[in-house]
Amino acid sequence: MSAELPESITLEALVQRFGGRIARGDPQRVVRRLASLTTAGADDLSFLTSAPFKAQAESTRAGAVLVGEALADAIPADCALVIVDDPYACYAHVAGWIAGWREALESPPVGVHPSAVVAPDASLGEGVAIGPGCVVEAEAVIGDGVRLGPGCFVGRGARIGARSRLVAQVSLYAGCVLGEDVLVHASTVIGSDGFGFAPEAGQWVKIPQLGRVVVGNQVEIGANCAIDRGALDDTVIGDGCKLDNLIQIGHNVRIGEHSVLAGCTGVSGSAVIGRRCRLGGGVGIVGHLQICDDVTITGMTMVTRSITTPGTYSSSFPMMEHAAWERAAATVRQLPDLRQRLRKLEKLSGNR
Amino acid sequence: MSAELPESITLEALVQRFGGRIARGDPQRVVRRLASLTTAGADDLSFLTSAPFKAQAESTRAGAVLVGEALADAIPADCALVIVDDPYACYAHVAGWIAGWREALESPPVGVHPSAVVAPDASLGEGVAIGPGCVVEAEAVIGDGVRLGPGCFVGRGARIGARSRLVAQVSLYAGCVLGEDVLVHASTVIGSDGFGFAPEAGQWVKIPQLGRVVVGNQVEIGANCAIDRGALDDTVIGDGCKLDNLIQIGHNVRIGEHSVLAGCTGVSGSAVIGRRCRLGGGVGIVGHLQICDDVTITGMTMVTRSITTPGTYSSSFPMMEHAAWERAAATVRQLPDLRQRLRKLEKLSGNR
Amino acid sequence: MSAELPESITLEALVQRFGGRIARGDPQRVVRRLASLTTAGADDLSFLTSAPFKAQAESTRAGAVLVGEALADAIPADCALVIVDDPYACYAHVAGWIAGWREALESPPVGVHPSAVVAPDASLGEGVAIGPGCVVEAEAVIGDGVRLGPGCFVGRGARIGARSRLVAQVSLYAGCVLGEDVLVHASTVIGSDGFGFAPEAGQWVKIPQLGRVVVGNQVEIGANCAIDRGALDDTVIGDGCKLDNLIQIGHNVRIGEHSVLAGCTGVSGSAVIGRRCRLGGGVGIVGHLQICDDVTITGMTMVTRSITTPGTYSSSFPMMEHAAWERAAATVRQLPDLRQRLRKLEKLSGNR
Repeated sequence: MSAELPESITLEALVQRFGGRIARGDPQRVVRRLASLTTAGADDLSFLTSAPFKAQAESTRAGAVLVGEALADAIPADCALVIVDDPYACYAHVAGWIAGWREALESPPVGVHPSAVVAPDASLGEGVAIGPGCVVEAEAVIGDGVRLGPGCFVGRGARIGARSRLVAQVSLYAGCVLGEDVLVHASTVIGSDGFGFAPEAGQWVKIPQLGRVVVGNQVEIGANCAIDRGALDDTVIGDGCKLDNLIQIGHNVRIGEHSVLAGCTGVSGSAVIGRRCRLGGGVGIVGHLQICDDVTITGMTMVTRSITTPGTYSSSFPMMEHAAWERAAATVRQLPDLRQRLRKLEKLSGNR
Repeated sequence: MSAELPESITLEALVQRFGGRIARGDPQRVVRRLASLTTAGADDLSFLTSAPFKAQAESTRAGAVLVGEALADAIPADCALVIVDDPYACYAHVAGWIAGWREALESPPVGVHPSAVVAPDASLGEGVAIGPGCVVEAEAVIGDGVRLGPGCFVGRGARIGARSRLVAQVSLYAGCVLGEDVLVHASTVIGSDGFGFAPEAGQWVKIPQLGRVVVGNQVEIGANCAIDRGALDDTVIGDGCKLDNLIQIGHNVRIGEHSVLAGCTGVSGSAVIGRRCRLGGGVGIVGHLQICDDVTITGMTMVTRSITTPGTYSSSFPMMEHAAWERAAATVRQLPDLRQRLRKLEKLSGNR
Repeated sequence: MSAELPESITLEALVQRFGGRIARGDPQRVVRRLASLTTAGADDLSFLTSAPFKAQAESTRAGAVLVGEALADAIPADCALVIVDDPYACYAHVAGWIAGWREALESPPVGVHPSAVVAPDASLGEGVAIGPGCVVEAEAVIGDGVRLGPGCFVGRGARIGARSRLVAQVSLYAGCVLGEDVLVHASTVIGSDGFGFAPEAGQWVKIPQLGRVVVGNQVEIGANCAIDRGALDDTVIGDGCKLDNLIQIGHNVRIGEHSVLAGCTGVSGSAVIGRRCRLGGGVGIVGHLQICDDVTITGMTMVTRSITTPGTYSSSFPMMEHAAWERAAATVRQLPDLRQRLRKLEKLSGNR
């Protein structure tokens, strides 16, 4: 598949806009789309970013290819060649040109849609776009250039920083705060009650959740996530963090700057995660733990104790063909017994 | 509990409609509801599909029971007996009669609700029902007989095939495509950005996500799922796939026809899943892997390498009483050491 | 951080309202906020509930502290002291005072918002609040004092008991039932189709899902959960259960009274969970199992067989530094072989 460019563009105009030089081909040649090497056709611009994709490049039918000096030889002779310093960055910039154009088309137009319900004392910045069916409650503060897609709910006194975008159906509960340039995908919930109940006579008594969620700048949060408000202090997501879809963040969690969490991960209440951490998909973090900066957790690991040393940590059971797994799993149950028997043999042999 | 039939029906009319023959009881006997064997009463029709439910059948108080020839003896003498070739299929058809009736009642009526916001240049097929609060953006194409429940969002240029149904609050992002006869449950998000960020100077730079999600025909997707759009190529869900609730599908994933994924499963970006695969609940698939056709993955397995042979695969740790688990888990940590000690003993004994 | 009280209050008025006695400080001293020990300032009321927080108490700058007799010595001399029997309960009550005040502000006002779409034959109780964009279909029954936040969908014939609150964007499908004093957080879906498909000629035929979801009284359900309706009988959540965020409940599941389920947990179809059970985060329950009363399941455990004895059960793989994990995981694959070799050595040594 391919992505249409905002306008057809000559190679000459392309390098004027994004840098690089035309090493082969007619500068007046026109490209109309951005496409991957395997799907590109004669009107398409493609890119070769690294050696593993060389084989794909050698058989590409792209009209023109962005490539670094070192891999230029891999491109077929009938493709135009645009040599750039960093083809991955150049791809990202061309893609960003397309994305910006599309977002301008897709976003609700500036202004408040007549079906939106905005409290008279909510504060709206310059150039704000509030889509159909949005609800913005009293004392909410919406920064300049913020875009709310259809059906978003902004609770009483919540604040959204400049240029942030809530795509659709997002719920931002009362009092919660989003920074600037934040992107939140559809149906995500920010500020739901933390899971706090005290046992009393065989029942559970609710502990009211009075803190907020405070999300920093340049944070992206995927679809269908749930981030709970703090019990009394705040739940905090640091600047530059990226959260994938279907992530659960418990109350009073604090996540340091520029950490990334892959999908289906759950962080239990009051856990503290450092800066620049990377959590794989389906990870679970037990409550009240502390994880230091620069820790990587591989997918589906359960973190059961605090981590004080940067590095990579894992806990998943290795995948096997089912019959082999059944035998291994059965033996896992016997492990303490096997250890005992080994010890006994060692004693018998005089080895320990 | 029981489900009311669209109308009371005599056994004679029932077999005319759904097949089978009345082996015992008055053909003019009337049944009003469909019920399970344990809850059915004198006005209810029930069904015995297979031997494990024989004990339930022997004490049922149903007015009439659908049953195959082989198990007819299990039904009490005071129940009317309707012998059918395939009682499970016959149950499904009677249930389908009820479901069709209910859906006709529950669906938004044909037409566009006055509170819906439909772009003038969106294309609506014949007999379309657009519920309250829906938003359909420019250039979207809605096929014949499509039903959108309350609060659905269909982004710019998205397309929905004939007879598909989005139950409520579904978000279909710009450009994404659903096939015919697709059912999507509430709050599911299709087309959110894939999770693509390039590290740069200790921060994360967003890779714009320009591909689409393309969903085939006869696909069912549960509630609160998130299916990301491709980075440049498309994310593809094949014809006849069935996805349960709370499922995450990363960007550029491709799933073959008629595969089923149980709830809470996550598939990381660019993974390829074959046809007729069956994934249990809570499964995780690492990115960029390939899984061939006809593979079964048991619940909570993490798939960490490509699978090239059909079969069943597992990776969960066996459940134990907690104290036993603690001992086994402690021994797991010592496994490499135990293996070393075993080797040493083998050498001592001259066995290896 | 701190939470503002509904009004500034003197210590004298505080003990009149919540009990306890002023052991030190001016009864006319005013507190304006409730705060944790580490963040409280001179205008704030804080609380010391148990010995582990003594160190925090010793350096607190709170204006006044709620504390039990036994730990009163830990509070600095310049803090006012309010001695109470149970400081945790007293904190919960003060927090509840704040929460009630906030909820009154945040809730949609009593009445039906003009943008809501309520069927003429839906039944609305006394003092009901129906927020903007809500859809209440025919024959639905909304009890006294129920509050529906923005964008909630209540399907045909669904029923909501008195004083229940659906925060925002909640979908309650046709025919489903919520008890009294139920709280459901945003984007949760109740009553989606159970995952029932019969294999037929390489395809999947849908089994219509005709049962309901029946939720008891005093139940709390977090954000972005999905609770499926039964196939023919009902899915049942007992009185007093508490469900965290992102939880999946399959069709025909029954959960006993006062059980709590932490986030990201999935319960497969027809499983039965007893009363007062506690499930950690990310737990998976295989379908058709039975779990007795008073069972605790630790986080990320997969329950693969029925549990008939109260107690604690676990199945997660222990977390390790990645290189150590790789060695342990490799050895897990060899476990059946290691067991064989151990047996051989035992025979050689005449030990078994």
